[in-house]
Amino acid sequence: MFNTLFLPELREMLASSNRAELEEFCQTLNAGRTAEFMEGLANEEVWQVLQFAPANRRAEIFGYFEHERQVAMLETHEPREAAELIEQMPADDRVDLIQDLTSDRVALVLPLLPIGVRRDIQRLQSYQDGTAGALMTSEVAMLEEHMTVKDALDQLGRQSSELETIYYLYVVDTNNLLCGIVSTRQLVSSLKHPGLTLGEIMESDVVAVLVSDDQETVAEKVERYNLLAIPVVDTGRQLLGIITHDDVIDVVREELAEDAQRIAAVEPLEDNFLRVGLWTLCWKRGLWLTILFFAALLTAFALRHYEADLEKYAWLVWFIPLIISAGGNSGSQSATLVITAMTSGEVRFRDWPVVLRREIIVSLGLGSFLAMIGFSVALFIAPSIRDACVIPSTLLLVIVCGCLCGATLPIAFKRLGLDPAMMSNPFVAGIVDIMGIVIYINIARLLIA
Amino acid sequence: MFNTLFLPELREMLASSNRAELEEFCQTLNAGRTAEFMEGLANEEVWQVLQFAPANRRAEIFGYFEHERQVAMLETHEPREAAELIEQMPADDRVDLIQDLTSDRVALVLPLLPIGVRRDIQRLQSYQDGTAGALMTSEVAMLEEHMTVKDALDQLGRQSSELETIYYLYVVDTNNLLCGIVSTRQLVSSLKHPGLTLGEIMESDVVAVLVSDDQETVAEKVERYNLLAIPVVDTGRQLLGIITHDDVIDVVREELAEDAQRIAAVEPLEDNFLRVGLWTLCWKRGLWLTILFFAALLTAFALRHYEADLEKYAWLVWFIPLIISAGGNSGSQSATLVITAMTSGEVRFRDWPVVLRREIIVSLGLGSFLAMIGFSVALFIAPSIRDACVIPSTLLLVIVCGCLCGATLPIAFKRLGLDPAMMSNPFVAGIVDIMGIVIYINIARLLIA
Repeated sequence: MFNTLFLPELREMLASSNRAELEEFCQTLNAGRTAEFMEGLANEEVWQVLQFAPANRRAEIFGYFEHERQVAMLETHEPREAAELIEQMPADDRVDLIQDLTSDRVALVLPLLPIGVRRDIQRLQSYQDGTAGALMTSEVAMLEEHMTVKDALDQLGRQSSELETIYYLYVVDTNNLLCGIVSTRQLVSSLKHPGLTLGEIMESDVVAVLVSDDQETVAEKVERYNLLAIPVVDTGRQLLGIITHDDVIDVVREELAEDAQRIAAVEPLEDNFLRVGLWTLCWKRGLWLTILFFAALLTAFALRHYEADLEKYAWLVWFIPLIISAGGNSGSQSATLVITAMTSGEVRFRDWPVVLRREIIVSLGLGSFLAMIGFSVALFIAPSIRDACVIPSTLLLVIVCGCLCGATLPIAFKRLGLDPAMMSNPFVAGIVDIMGIVIYINIARLLIA
Repeated sequence: MFNTLFLPELREMLASSNRAELEEFCQTLNAGRTAEFMEGLANEEVWQVLQFAPANRRAEIFGYFEHERQVAMLETHEPREAAELIEQMPADDRVDLIQDLTSDRVALVLPLLPIGVRRDIQRLQSYQDGTAGALMTSEVAMLEEHMTVKDALDQLGRQSSELETIYYLYVVDTNNLLCGIVSTRQLVSSLKHPGLTLGEIMESDVVAVLVSDDQETVAEKVERYNLLAIPVVDTGRQLLGIITHDDVIDVVREELAEDAQRIAAVEPLEDNFLRVGLWTLCWKRGLWLTILFFAALLTAFALRHYEADLEKYAWLVWFIPLIISAGGNSGSQSATLVITAMTSGEVRFRDWPVVLRREIIVSLGLGSFLAMIGFSVALFIAPSIRDACVIPSTLLLVIVCGCLCGATLPIAFKRLGLDPAMMSNPFVAGIVDIMGIVIYINIARLLIA
């Protein structure tokens, strides 16, 4: 019935307080789709509809709204109901929300939460952004070694609505130290022997991350071992929480978007593009723009240095932007390809001779082709055929140099422990620009003089 | 014990055919870590070790080796054992492997597989790359509506080793039409009522993708609804397979790397950077490089057009690269920020007025700052203070125009149904270069003349 449901019908249900239909609406669909159907409602209407869902379902549906809408809904609604909803949310998500509420609102809502939830929020808030601690949720199935398969399954059944994932059970000792892991898959396939204990079927070699580990490390391990969730421990191997696969996708997205921004010489924003402050935006862009500007200033001094040549052969000037952009574009292609290949693990340091050999061949090919086009244009503009030869020779050399710079600098930076994405494009651009001019004028002197 | 295990010890176990220890080595650890410990072994040694694992565990460990190594191992080993391993692998992974084996090898190995597996491989191979069909695996838990919770759990226990994921059960009718979904979570929490049927607890509003859907659609739905796996159906809603979350992470990685490549004006490689053919590489880079080259040629004609001005005020020439690069860099910053924000869903078409307003403010700020630096340098180089004013005025205008082009073109392209990442950077570069020169000379004429 709900595939054809429209906003007016939902509003009508609300107006007539049609309890049965509203309850059905909140329960029958996938929670994400229920949220989508409500997108057109005003915030207070959404609150009214949500009253017809049981508390945990209410939080689940709420979790599918956009972050901005969640904040707005919690900011303006009656504090007690807002607190109830927050209590039911996954531990990691509610911390993210509370961080974006105004401090007045937090002061109003926080005291309405049970002391245990409050402590949990404080604890999770204390971890630094970008670390495993900031990503994890504290709702995790911790069971003891001597528990039987049957008892574990029963307990899981009782707790399942509170846990973020029930697909791994973590076996801990009396000090909460992580000693093993049992997947629900193992549990289910051990059902024919319900008397087995978790200690007997668990895998004791658990892949885990430290609470202080970088989020990139988390993503890397989850991907390498194909996990649905990864446990987070402290240095004493006490189990603190887990990070689930959906948070890992977010990390991958964030890291790759940051890479793309670094390649274009922007300090990663680390916030929504439309929400980040204009001062911050100026600063994060201005920093690299200024560095690049100083690099480009060198070209002005180089050209001034070649003043005499440029006045004698005025037509050389017309090709300056062409030569610089050909070098810059081919260099940034190489740099981007090498950086993305290194991020995905396709290229490592030991591969540099292969990369170099391939770049030389490709750049000779590309350079020769563009040199031919450049030559045919130069024939019309340059005073003689011999003079026109300056253009193709320069183009070929600049493109080969541009590609080699673009391909090797990221590898070198990575080797030096620097972020290849951050350092390479500004460097490539700066080096190739100035190199282009020096090559150009010197070839001109050689051929024309 | 195995955390301190080194290669020599593993080799010693092999030399002495220490069955008990080798069996323990294959079984105790996480399969991914077992594979890591064997990384230093030669291919034939790995085969020897794998003989001590049960068939399905063997395939699981094998699945963690790098793709190239898997291909090499299957290419050279005794065909019967290779076929046995392939039979045990997840349906989607084995298709990817078989595609990279030589045709001679495929002809040798394929006939050794059971007819069912062979058909399955052929069926999965028939789907086009980049579609849901090419990502899916056919091993999915399909159960019938009238089955009870208890029976479902029992059957799951028996089949669990063959299924890629046991976290969702798909409920189908007698024609294999998808009619509902039960998560293992629901199953486990319904254990207190073991007589309930799947039909009674299932969610009938199933989020699914069409077999012909693009892989981006798949990733988007899995992320939006926080799924562990998504069912793949044909247009008649017959269940064909599922796509699991680990394949979705790969898609996200691939799509974002392609975006980064498109931003740098390279046609996405769609293959490993080191393995892609040199001709293909030349073509994928040359295409855009040539288009950009023709755009840059326009600058040569523009400069030629302004020949008289440039000869009169020779010092103007020195700042040409600086002005072009300032415009280009700020434009590519804006374009990259808008493109990554659109990919992550932070910016939509309706946001363009906000984006524009923010870009104007930021570019005025950045432009003024760089204009000041440019002015102080120009004071030393230009013949008079009035002449020097050409540089800051031009810089400010070029940077503002560059940012506006960079920010609005991706949004416009997206609106026109084109890929913003593909079209924008070449366009921005081309437009900003030529615009920079026209602005520069005209401001010079205005101020100096």
